[in-house]
Amino acid sequence: MNNIINIDALIIGAGPVGLFQVFELGLLGIKCCVVDSLSKIGGQCIELYPDKPIYDIPAIPSCTGKELINNLLEQIKPFKPDFYLNQEIKKIKKKNNLFHVRSSKKKFICKTIFIAAGVGAFKHRKLKIKNINNFNNLQLFYKIKNVDIFKNKDIIICGGGDSALDWTLKLINISNSITLIHRRNEFRASPSSVLKMKKLCEEYKMQFLVGQINDFNIKNNKINEIKVISNDGITRRLKLDYLLVFFGLSPKLGPILNWGLNIEKKQIKVNTKKFETNIKGIFAVGDINTYPGKKKLILSGFHETALAAYGSIKYIFPKKKIYTQYTTTSSKLHKILGVKSPKF
Amino acid sequence: MNNIINIDALIIGAGPVGLFQVFELGLLGIKCCVVDSLSKIGGQCIELYPDKPIYDIPAIPSCTGKELINNLLEQIKPFKPDFYLNQEIKKIKKKNNLFHVRSSKKKFICKTIFIAAGVGAFKHRKLKIKNINNFNNLQLFYKIKNVDIFKNKDIIICGGGDSALDWTLKLINISNSITLIHRRNEFRASPSSVLKMKKLCEEYKMQFLVGQINDFNIKNNKINEIKVISNDGITRRLKLDYLLVFFGLSPKLGPILNWGLNIEKKQIKVNTKKFETNIKGIFAVGDINTYPGKKKLILSGFHETALAAYGSIKYIFPKKKIYTQYTTTSSKLHKILGVKSPKF
Repeated sequence: MNNIINIDALIIGAGPVGLFQVFELGLLGIKCCVVDSLSKIGGQCIELYPDKPIYDIPAIPSCTGKELINNLLEQIKPFKPDFYLNQEIKKIKKKNNLFHVRSSKKKFICKTIFIAAGVGAFKHRKLKIKNINNFNNLQLFYKIKNVDIFKNKDIIICGGGDSALDWTLKLINISNSITLIHRRNEFRASPSSVLKMKKLCEEYKMQFLVGQINDFNIKNNKINEIKVISNDGITRRLKLDYLLVFFGLSPKLGPILNWGLNIEKKQIKVNTKKFETNIKGIFAVGDINTYPGKKKLILSGFHETALAAYGSIKYIFPKKKIYTQYTTTSSKLHKILGVKSPKF
Repeated sequence: MNNIINIDALIIGAGPVGLFQVFELGLLGIKCCVVDSLSKIGGQCIELYPDKPIYDIPAIPSCTGKELINNLLEQIKPFKPDFYLNQEIKKIKKKNNLFHVRSSKKKFICKTIFIAAGVGAFKHRKLKIKNINNFNNLQLFYKIKNVDIFKNKDIIICGGGDSALDWTLKLINISNSITLIHRRNEFRASPSSVLKMKKLCEEYKMQFLVGQINDFNIKNNKINEIKVISNDGITRRLKLDYLLVFFGLSPKLGPILNWGLNIEKKQIKVNTKKFETNIKGIFAVGDINTYPGKKKLILSGFHETALAAYGSIKYIFPKKKIYTQYTTTSSKLHKILGVKSPKF
């Protein structure tokens, strides 16, 4: 099966710590690839705070999440890692000292696994109304792939963040009607989008309703109306063709819980010598691990990747003895990094 | 005695890890000052490789030692730490949960100590000839404070690095004669300085001799000549007034060995929870410490400073409970760092 990817090390999670794990493995000559459940590289830094400044990355007085990720991508360029995005790791099985790993899209065979999954895979927060999720991807959407189906339809959008506002403004021109529902009259979205939406309401081009969906009715096997309870205590009924819900992302450890790892309070227990888990050959680095003294700091994750990389050598090069070399002086590392060895 | 400095935390060592310790303590509201045996801030980065690129600082694809230190100085600016340079810590005594610390120039009273001394205090490598060091700072110098004493004198300079060459070129104009002695005809110095020196030799303005000093003679309680054995096996006698030796710096743990700390192979043993030593309230971070898995990497030192800072809270604010806060989101930390809290 040519679909199987054979690799020394599989990194789960393309956040800052997963990316630096590529670097530390690369320095030791270990080939790796990276899998992430999100569609973009960068994890929380890109998903949650791309433009917020971070001040505690050592020797970088200030950088945004986006800048941090771009710098790390630049740093790991010499190692040309493959990224497999938009897929969650489902199963891991150990056979003859090799891990057989299956994501939602690919199969991998690897000697070691580095879990750098942060707080877990990000999933869309769901609408918590009994049976409504049976209509997922039929009339209820948490994520939009095909805009055309909304043409000339009556659409209800739920949420108060940028996704809710952006889709409101995008679908206003093609839909028959749009109603935006949010539990309060304040938004966690770009002020200019909020202004535009309010202007559309004033021009009677759409409606905004403060309230929460609490029920729905079915007719001919379809949702034909939802019930919205407002702050005034009144329940309104709204007809609709489609319901779009943007409640943000919430992290879930997901299948990781079933791999036989020692888990404590949703974190994977590791030792501080190699940041190895109870399963030999599986390492956990960054926010997802726990050990005495653990702080969820990016800079701690960086340290953990270095020691985990050294800890993995015996599984990848069982007979090789590797000494610590320094990037300032080692001409071997200069060759790996593709830089010229300076002469002094 | 107004000469005593009272402080929460005393950091020993102004290298990259010592500087980042300032930052991590600062974030927690802990006041500190930094002592170093060298005359400049930056430790090995400045002393040994100011212009060499470093490639393994996370999210900094390449920077020189000098750039790394400048970035760290920028990052710790909000905390305005005092630096006490050019002085070695000699004695540490614990009295009533306070440390009384004495450097060669100052006295400190502090609640905690962070040893970030790298490979130890840098000392000038000495000339290893019996009794010659009795003339230290009289006729023999490893470090020059007052140039005037060399006026119209016969000077011998030993060494093949930048210091030896620089002083040769500097003293050529005021001395009566200069002889440079180096064990081989190759130099670890700027090529332009070497060229200038060779030109001076061609013009008979100075002498260069390949060889090693192996003995000296005394007349009227003064060194009046040294003996130099050359590669050809011939021993030459050279008259002199002053002998300047520039053999570079070598690190020495020095007085640290006598403070009652658990030392293993010239490293201080620490736990990995707080990077605390066997003496409560004394922490050791960076290249000077050891624990299972230890790698002498700057990025590991950075992680260690963070956990050590948290570990020290109980000695500094015994009653305060401190939670991990993030520089991206905490308005308290933004205030400490002197930055504006962004609104989202």
